[in-house]
Amino acid sequence: MGTLGNLPGILVKILPKILPVRSAHTYVRIADLKTCKQGDNVTIKGWINNARKMKKTSFVDIVDGSSAAPLQVVLGKELSASADVTFGSSVVTSGTLGSTPKGQIELRAEEYHLIGACPIDEGFPFAAKHTYSPDYLREHLHLRSRIPSFAATLRVRNAAQRAFVDFLHSRGFLHIHTPVLTASDCEGAGEVFRVRPDSDELLRGMQKEDVPQEEAFFDRRTYLSVSGQLHLEAMAHGIGNCFTFGPTFRAENNKSPIHLSEFYMLEAEQVFTSSLSDCIHLIGDMVRNVTQELLESCTEDIALCHGDSTGDLFPWLRESREFPVLTFREAVEILQKNTESLRVPIVPEEGLMKSHELFLTDFCRSPVFIVDWPHTLKPFYMRPKDTDPTLVDALDFLVPRIGELVGGSLRENDYERLKKKLPAGSEWYLSLRRFGGIPTAGFGMGFERYLQFLLNVHNIRDVIPFPRWPHSCNL
Amino acid sequence: MGTLGNLPGILVKILPKILPVRSAHTYVRIADLKTCKQGDNVTIKGWINNARKMKKTSFVDIVDGSSAAPLQVVLGKELSASADVTFGSSVVTSGTLGSTPKGQIELRAEEYHLIGACPIDEGFPFAAKHTYSPDYLREHLHLRSRIPSFAATLRVRNAAQRAFVDFLHSRGFLHIHTPVLTASDCEGAGEVFRVRPDSDELLRGMQKEDVPQEEAFFDRRTYLSVSGQLHLEAMAHGIGNCFTFGPTFRAENNKSPIHLSEFYMLEAEQVFTSSLSDCIHLIGDMVRNVTQELLESCTEDIALCHGDSTGDLFPWLRESREFPVLTFREAVEILQKNTESLRVPIVPEEGLMKSHELFLTDFCRSPVFIVDWPHTLKPFYMRPKDTDPTLVDALDFLVPRIGELVGGSLRENDYERLKKKLPAGSEWYLSLRRFGGIPTAGFGMGFERYLQFLLNVHNIRDVIPFPRWPHSCNL
Repeated sequence: MGTLGNLPGILVKILPKILPVRSAHTYVRIADLKTCKQGDNVTIKGWINNARKMKKTSFVDIVDGSSAAPLQVVLGKELSASADVTFGSSVVTSGTLGSTPKGQIELRAEEYHLIGACPIDEGFPFAAKHTYSPDYLREHLHLRSRIPSFAATLRVRNAAQRAFVDFLHSRGFLHIHTPVLTASDCEGAGEVFRVRPDSDELLRGMQKEDVPQEEAFFDRRTYLSVSGQLHLEAMAHGIGNCFTFGPTFRAENNKSPIHLSEFYMLEAEQVFTSSLSDCIHLIGDMVRNVTQELLESCTEDIALCHGDSTGDLFPWLRESREFPVLTFREAVEILQKNTESLRVPIVPEEGLMKSHELFLTDFCRSPVFIVDWPHTLKPFYMRPKDTDPTLVDALDFLVPRIGELVGGSLRENDYERLKKKLPAGSEWYLSLRRFGGIPTAGFGMGFERYLQFLLNVHNIRDVIPFPRWPHSCNL
Repeated sequence: MGTLGNLPGILVKILPKILPVRSAHTYVRIADLKTCKQGDNVTIKGWINNARKMKKTSFVDIVDGSSAAPLQVVLGKELSASADVTFGSSVVTSGTLGSTPKGQIELRAEEYHLIGACPIDEGFPFAAKHTYSPDYLREHLHLRSRIPSFAATLRVRNAAQRAFVDFLHSRGFLHIHTPVLTASDCEGAGEVFRVRPDSDELLRGMQKEDVPQEEAFFDRRTYLSVSGQLHLEAMAHGIGNCFTFGPTFRAENNKSPIHLSEFYMLEAEQVFTSSLSDCIHLIGDMVRNVTQELLESCTEDIALCHGDSTGDLFPWLRESREFPVLTFREAVEILQKNTESLRVPIVPEEGLMKSHELFLTDFCRSPVFIVDWPHTLKPFYMRPKDTDPTLVDALDFLVPRIGELVGGSLRENDYERLKKKLPAGSEWYLSLRRFGGIPTAGFGMGFERYLQFLLNVHNIRDVIPFPRWPHSCNL
């Protein structure tokens, strides 16, 4: 019960029986061994990733999820004779830090104890020194973090989440939590999930006259958000530049390697701007700065994820120029001049297909912005260009290997124009333009697509801990 | 199109027409005026919060969402005569920084232009110099960020989100995104939302044999997560200490001022620990450090939210002792000895009611941990105490004004014991204990309840931008 200080007398009389001892950290994470010296005595806790039993000695590789490389633990003759070194077991070991002939840190064990055994013949899906296909690993989502390359992905995902948030904070953007449950439908009907309580009894008890039973909880049909943009705009109209970064949902029967039913989207809104250039610069600076930072801070993890992919994946990072910007018309022209290189010819009225996007990034040898889109290809909330109202001030940001990473635009802030194209039920959105309206711009970035791009991962299901896609919602 | 550098010739020939000029920041946020000097020439953009027209001069208070206090702008005779100073309008104004007689920064305007008018008689729900009830403001969610005290709440929410994440990062915890869509049901049936695509046509097209149409998207019934804990434990069993921080859902018909249908929960899992003290210290350190930091970094915003509440809301911050810890039995004993002070007597078999929790925090004059709970009051995944298996190593962390803020426990890591009490469908959770299992502890904190506690806000609906509760899902 801590020290009791000046607590009431009666409390002191009720004799405290538990003293929450503040235990010194009893073990060191492998990643933190960098800060230790040779000869230090340390304790390590983790899982066995590999083991080699020799006559007198055993070499056991331990992973604890903190670092790309395992720690080699050396067991002398006595410990080696009795030690359980089964792959997958959890262990605690103490000893002295030394160095391998190649100069890497190793632990010379003085103590070694099993924490949790791993009876591999009772259904453990992994074995030592094996590599597994992403499809196989996905069948064992609950154990996937035990695979070093997937643990590396989780560490990079953590670092990337933080880097994007830090970047936007440094630019004065406020983090806003837009809702998952919504009565609005941002982009158009048909691709949303609908929500109701599981219990019919609850619904019957809550039902009001004239409300269908299924809608009795909120008195209206309720969906999972497909975008936080409209809600974010509402907040931006009072608190200024802001962003939202959370789960987003699409009920599309799309099993492509760049689509998920639940994915993370980073959406930002810039206030008091009438120039798409502001949005282009913000996105360009963000992607460049975050990528540079992650390549420096997560070097080993990113290398582990890249595996044997060779070549320079980010040549544009070394170049000091800004990302190129093409108008949609220019992009079409390039594609038309290169029809022989395309699997599918470009049909301008239908916009860009993924193969067209990839051709353009290959062609530019860089991420590239496409601007000045025909309004027929974009949603109602985008602002027409002053110079040509058949076009909107919209952008797609295309990156190599992935295609579209970011979409953005100036927002339609003309009250009368917006009124004409507004979907039903969005009167609140219109009224933002009526009472002290301001010009804004914004964008949305698929976070998992960024991770695919950074880590050169083919399937989006392999950069999120618990992927959901059509016919698959495991755990 | 940026500088074109070494792009392919054809791209250079397609003449770039847009040059994304990098406009220097064209205005200063009011919060950033601290870094300016008197005499500086600056431009401000924001909304009119108040205006006083005198004979020769107008004083206009501008807010832009960046600071607790508005900026006073002084319009001289000429500008004053023509200026629209209607409450709620958005404006841009430039001039020289000066100082009021009381020493506060003011702007002496040289230019002043309307951006968006605010026709207040056409339905704008707010007027100058009025204060509104929280209930009234909640009827206008999309405009609520225009109210200075709510904008302050959003800024504190942003800072608090960041402070909790930074604290856990500093302790080596990894941020993991646990899923919203789940086939698991962490705490028990009946209080969950169920999810399906909105489109029947989509479902018909996806339906497989033996699967009910409503479940055709994922081939199973799918829910919104009530807790990320079980998924977080799975990841912790490979990558170590980690946390999740995101939206969580409860389909309860509960309209209390501390319940929402969609709320944010911070959940953390500590690995390789068999002592509840580790969890107690982590929570105590976190709440103490984050609160201290926010009181220092958001002083003006917190004061604005506290309004006219008097008295010292955080006396325990000045005391160096740890938070007191009571066993459940001791807590019951205190409540029984004070029956005359309780509205409802304590019935130990039913656990603590909110009024009991508040009595205990008043009694201790501090947040307080309650530990050693009867297992009948807690869920299956909590670990029995070695010394008394009728109790579990669980904690509730109670805070003044709110009651339960955090719940946590050691996790049941004994394979055979867990097997006996496991709910159906959670075999994957059991298998974490089978293959290299480890002892872990963890907790979950309601983020909005923390904000209520920090900001002394009565209703939880007023610390989240878009609150959802029974019969209410606006926007």
